[in-house]
Amino acid sequence: MTRQQLVAEIFKKKTFLCVGLDVDLEKIPSHLKGDNDAIFKFNKAIIDATHNYCVSYKPNTAFYEQYGARGWLAFEKTVNYISQNYPSHFIIADAKRGDIGNTSHAYAKAFFENINCDAITVAPYMGSDSVQPFLEYKNKWAIVLALTSNKGANDFQNKAIANNKFLFEEVLETTAKWGTDENLMFVVGATQAPMLEKIRKIVPSHFLLVPGVGAQGGSLQDVVKYGFIKNCGLLVNSSRGIIYASNGIDFIEAAEAEAKKIADEMSQFFD
Amino acid sequence: MTRQQLVAEIFKKKTFLCVGLDVDLEKIPSHLKGDNDAIFKFNKAIIDATHNYCVSYKPNTAFYEQYGARGWLAFEKTVNYISQNYPSHFIIADAKRGDIGNTSHAYAKAFFENINCDAITVAPYMGSDSVQPFLEYKNKWAIVLALTSNKGANDFQNKAIANNKFLFEEVLETTAKWGTDENLMFVVGATQAPMLEKIRKIVPSHFLLVPGVGAQGGSLQDVVKYGFIKNCGLLVNSSRGIIYASNGIDFIEAAEAEAKKIADEMSQFFD
Repeated sequence: MTRQQLVAEIFKKKTFLCVGLDVDLEKIPSHLKGDNDAIFKFNKAIIDATHNYCVSYKPNTAFYEQYGARGWLAFEKTVNYISQNYPSHFIIADAKRGDIGNTSHAYAKAFFENINCDAITVAPYMGSDSVQPFLEYKNKWAIVLALTSNKGANDFQNKAIANNKFLFEEVLETTAKWGTDENLMFVVGATQAPMLEKIRKIVPSHFLLVPGVGAQGGSLQDVVKYGFIKNCGLLVNSSRGIIYASNGIDFIEAAEAEAKKIADEMSQFFD
Repeated sequence: MTRQQLVAEIFKKKTFLCVGLDVDLEKIPSHLKGDNDAIFKFNKAIIDATHNYCVSYKPNTAFYEQYGARGWLAFEKTVNYISQNYPSHFIIADAKRGDIGNTSHAYAKAFFENINCDAITVAPYMGSDSVQPFLEYKNKWAIVLALTSNKGANDFQNKAIANNKFLFEEVLETTAKWGTDENLMFVVGATQAPMLEKIRKIVPSHFLLVPGVGAQGGSLQDVVKYGFIKNCGLLVNSSRGIIYASNGIDFIEAAEAEAKKIADEMSQFFD
């Protein structure tokens, strides 16, 4: 998907919500448990209920890999379902991959050829040749971790390096040179909203993927205040808050209501 | 596997070779191509031919994921085959995972429960809660990226941070505190051998996983000179140099010969 298509979809629907599909078989409604295709069926129900209120879906690979080959198959089915039925939705494989060049090439093949994702999240620690293979695909995106929403962000990302910079600033500055705002995005946790002012000075036009609203406690208002740009430039993710809004037979309606609530809040920023 | 078991195996066999199982269907012998179970059959042949000369196997997940669910199944079958037939071999999932706590928990479940790996490689960028879940499993290991063998290592790992340190030194110092030398190892590329002297001052007793000998150009002599300790403390990996030593019908003998050559070279360091 191109940047232009993504922006058009956001402005048409007045939402920049991304729904995180982090399936945990222990948390899904009990009437779905035991079904051999439970992971996909749960996702399908969530997707059908929320697609009007979001522009993106983000399955996190960890939650599929924990169920082995069966989970991987459900991951593939989920991505196929979205791309066939809701082709205007931007699909992010939240995989946090990154390896030496020839290995990152294999990951790019996995997520961009074998599975039709639009984007993949990438860890920056191994440097340019670990990110470059993902940037070689036309209309595909690498979303590089910059400043994450978790406590551990303080261990290295927030470390001061030379020239009075933090490591995450160095990562933003350096990585931004490897691509453009048409094939690179960055992850910035919603819990780091005040840092967005600083971040926007380094990457004024890039899209940011912002997890951490909802279960992790980040504020949508703050994210918009510091991160929203002319073309929106934000994809704000909520996972658990939406998909586990209820674990009863009303889980579909509950997920829809929660997605709608966030989308309604988002729509005001387009006035 | 415990450290004691790993060390005993190394000293019994006088080798610290790890064979990297990075399967690429375009590179395997043509007589295996077209077989639906080609990935596993290739691995099985390589494992049977090399097990006397190595103490560890390291399948890299990228090469399996590029073939989708079928690849993931071959990955599972490979790990099962090793643990059932060669249980004294240390199995490393070279996956370079790392995510917020609840997600890393899912990865740990994937590689330590659903699949019986002994260790997983982990990217440090997201900090403590991204690594901790892997350290909670008894006799399992997290192998944290410190200084990798690729060109991109210079982008961030070799950046100077405060107190005249490099980022990789900070990663070693900080991460070492999260576990012990009985559940934590570090990745140091063979191409970085001269840095091993510095690294051994920070982590004098930890095992190091050293890729980059062979195809990537690192020297075994240099790695041993600076990295070998009383309990060996090294797992030196070779992937392409062994498994693609030949792509003809003699690939088994060629892989065996290449593994034996490295093991013979290693045996001298135990005299």
